[in-house]
Amino acid sequence: MSVTSTNPATGERRELDVGETSPEAVRAMAARAGDASSEYARRALDWREDLLGAMAEELEADADALVASARFETALPEPRLRGELARTAFQFRFFAEVVRDGAFLAASIDEATDSPMGPLPDLRRVRVPVGPVAVFGSSNFPFAFSVPGGDTASALAAGCAVVIKAHPAHPATSAACFVALSRAAVRCDAPEGLLGLVFGLDAGTALVQAPEVAAVGFTGSLAAGRALWALANAREVPIPFYGELGSANPLVVTAAAARERAVALGEGVAASVALGAGQFCTKPGLIFVPAGEDGDAVVASLGARLGAEGPFTLLSEGIAENFRRGARALEAQGGAAVLVAGEWGEAAHTSARLLEVDAARFARERALRAECFGPLAVAVRYGGPEELRAALEAAEPSLTFSVHVAEADPDAAALVALGARRAGRVVVNGYPTGVGVSWSMHHGGPWPATTAAGATSVGAAAVERWLRPVTYQTVPPDLLPAALRDENPLGIVRRVNGRLEAGTPPRGGR
Amino acid sequence: MSVTSTNPATGERRELDVGETSPEAVRAMAARAGDASSEYARRALDWREDLLGAMAEELEADADALVASARFETALPEPRLRGELARTAFQFRFFAEVVRDGAFLAASIDEATDSPMGPLPDLRRVRVPVGPVAVFGSSNFPFAFSVPGGDTASALAAGCAVVIKAHPAHPATSAACFVALSRAAVRCDAPEGLLGLVFGLDAGTALVQAPEVAAVGFTGSLAAGRALWALANAREVPIPFYGELGSANPLVVTAAAARERAVALGEGVAASVALGAGQFCTKPGLIFVPAGEDGDAVVASLGARLGAEGPFTLLSEGIAENFRRGARALEAQGGAAVLVAGEWGEAAHTSARLLEVDAARFARERALRAECFGPLAVAVRYGGPEELRAALEAAEPSLTFSVHVAEADPDAAALVALGARRAGRVVVNGYPTGVGVSWSMHHGGPWPATTAAGATSVGAAAVERWLRPVTYQTVPPDLLPAALRDENPLGIVRRVNGRLEAGTPPRGGR
Repeated sequence: MSVTSTNPATGERRELDVGETSPEAVRAMAARAGDASSEYARRALDWREDLLGAMAEELEADADALVASARFETALPEPRLRGELARTAFQFRFFAEVVRDGAFLAASIDEATDSPMGPLPDLRRVRVPVGPVAVFGSSNFPFAFSVPGGDTASALAAGCAVVIKAHPAHPATSAACFVALSRAAVRCDAPEGLLGLVFGLDAGTALVQAPEVAAVGFTGSLAAGRALWALANAREVPIPFYGELGSANPLVVTAAAARERAVALGEGVAASVALGAGQFCTKPGLIFVPAGEDGDAVVASLGARLGAEGPFTLLSEGIAENFRRGARALEAQGGAAVLVAGEWGEAAHTSARLLEVDAARFARERALRAECFGPLAVAVRYGGPEELRAALEAAEPSLTFSVHVAEADPDAAALVALGARRAGRVVVNGYPTGVGVSWSMHHGGPWPATTAAGATSVGAAAVERWLRPVTYQTVPPDLLPAALRDENPLGIVRRVNGRLEAGTPPRGGR
Repeated sequence: MSVTSTNPATGERRELDVGETSPEAVRAMAARAGDASSEYARRALDWREDLLGAMAEELEADADALVASARFETALPEPRLRGELARTAFQFRFFAEVVRDGAFLAASIDEATDSPMGPLPDLRRVRVPVGPVAVFGSSNFPFAFSVPGGDTASALAAGCAVVIKAHPAHPATSAACFVALSRAAVRCDAPEGLLGLVFGLDAGTALVQAPEVAAVGFTGSLAAGRALWALANAREVPIPFYGELGSANPLVVTAAAARERAVALGEGVAASVALGAGQFCTKPGLIFVPAGEDGDAVVASLGARLGAEGPFTLLSEGIAENFRRGARALEAQGGAAVLVAGEWGEAAHTSARLLEVDAARFARERALRAECFGPLAVAVRYGGPEELRAALEAAEPSLTFSVHVAEADPDAAALVALGARRAGRVVVNGYPTGVGVSWSMHHGGPWPATTAAGATSVGAAAVERWLRPVTYQTVPPDLLPAALRDENPLGIVRRVNGRLEAGTPPRGGR
């Protein structure tokens, strides 16, 4: 079956010069990735840095064509796509920096010693790449969470080959990005098979099941993620599945904050909800607002601003249909008032929606808790701190949890603590929709936000998903990996006899 | 049903003053552990250190009684049990040191900055405890991998409450250890419910299924581990399951090493196989020895020494029955010669066994690869490097992989590299049976050695299993956890704007 590229804005379809990948072809690609991973793991770290840098350059070299392709396939505005591509190139360079730093190897040396338990032998630990990683690109970020996205960049930084399943909503962009990355690989003389790209649902299944594949990175819906996670667990040799499955991202306005700045808060929330037509996995979908006049003013401002946004073209007709189905299901819940509702629209087109429900009802009705991917938010009105707490505990754990507070707000501390228990990122007086690439970012959260609460898909720690430790016991120096030799030839951060020692990366030659 | 303590050496049985724990009682205990975890997470880190130190002291205070109890229930020799208890107390103090160091929190601060991607907000990450941990004690280490073992100590170090399922082979020792730990908890005024202990198979199932339980640590057999792992995955909210399932632990003697020191190698291997009656999860079960005269001398020495060991009393009658069943199944494989075979024995008593098979057959016959827990080893005779490699690739991945080499051995580098691909610890010219508690130890390995190749159940990194990261975005200083405040009040290792900064733990008051 051939692969088709569709413009969600116009419905125009283009048949691509590529077909869905057969399961046999997927298995062959995974086998080549296995060989490539072994070879790649033997290359020097600075070669790995160079490769990541070259990938950033090649993406930038093709920027105009890549943005045009993504514009056709996603209907996202050009400035957003240019920004996303720049961020994607930056991400490759950031991971080159992570490689250079070397702390991700968790190198640790314990020289032989007499412990209270008797003699301990020389023990040296380092992390090694797990092997080929399967990456499932997302619908909503055609660059940053797709073929050249964080999963790909972090897996390459870890020393793993990557086979990517293209998202069906942007196959042409996926193929074009793959060409740019492959050009960088050829330029650097990378092992053949280091990168692979497959198309089609069955290809994705075959990829998770391929014996050489050692781990999976996935960004997408709860249903698709759970199904693939179950496949990964059902293998003869189960493999870790790092799924980022989206979430409802509660945002709380305290009574004091509502009193202080209702209009500005309503506008800020509306802008965050409408960003990218609501198609962010960090979109604040549940807005907890106090009952009473101050809260009414927040909701009025939110509704006015959200109603003025759009109409929107979503990423695909399928996503728009899911949005309409999800929104209708929420609206069918007795007690949920519809405050903002434009045209439902047709094909990929639709409008923003704002619902309202009281917190007690929200806490009771499970159906109200579902994420609705797209430009929709639910204002949950609470009577007091206890009702708020109960409603927040009823909401599913999330990627993010935001709180808007006033100066010396009596509710602030308890809400921040609650957020830390139920989300991977707690935002105070800000909005969760931006996910910066940095050392301290955590983009993850407790189930069902992700399948692995300890893992992040953004930021330096993303690389840790693709590594496992190995300890070398009484291994002679010439048989040790460079990271563990006494003289620290890589200049990386290490722990030596229990004390961390800073690294001094040499330029070149490592 | 009441719980019974059995002496495997004599068959003497004592009925304990405790019954199997009902599922309702397990759920109530898990709920209390949930509350205790929340309270514990709020306590200061130095309080946590004090608690761990107090547990070491209380175990030592009861040493005579604990060792006597374990002696009755396990038939392990007294010096071994005294050493194991000392190591177990040491482990609590070691984890107190890990807490003091603070690197396990992975604290990272990125101050607000203008990045190439535009402004980045203030982002600060720290790891938080996951919540109550369920620990399944092992049969073979009544202290070090049971109630007061590494899973319990590391979970408490991480800030989590612990509910332990006692191993049925040493219930009285489990109860006595629990009393010592509980005394330490009371002495330190720990939150009620911080520690729990349950007995019985159904109680174990209920524990994995209890909603408050956030993660599981397990040491035991592949069959039991896989079953509980499946339960953990089948929950409405799946939880991570860290199972250490044992392994066959290949040990390779190169041609050059066999030529150089055949007799000493045979004796060394035999001692490692017979240690603790072969009941170590790191027992070298597959001994790869070259064909020909030098190899014959290794096997002869191994057989002579192993045949002189024993007879043995295993940990329980059930374990001895499994040993006889497993050994008979291996011996029924056509082509496996029996070189050493004493009496099969009755009840918990048995003798050491040594089998021999050629490498080509080993590579073909899957049944030969199974771990046989107890005093048995299989000598696998190989003709050359290629046959050796194929046989090693056919063996299951393991916790450990040992290689005995000569000076400038032409086979050494390839074997060390192969070992690093297929095991969690690579030992050169040594034996895998000792597992030291240290910063650099990794006790884990690829499936089926464990269910999570990235995790270790021994050493400083064991604490990482019970933590998940949270990032705080633009959170005012007074709402930040202490680990993330600018002034570093805990004196812990942190990454600040991408650079690691050493910690300076203050004494007291943190």
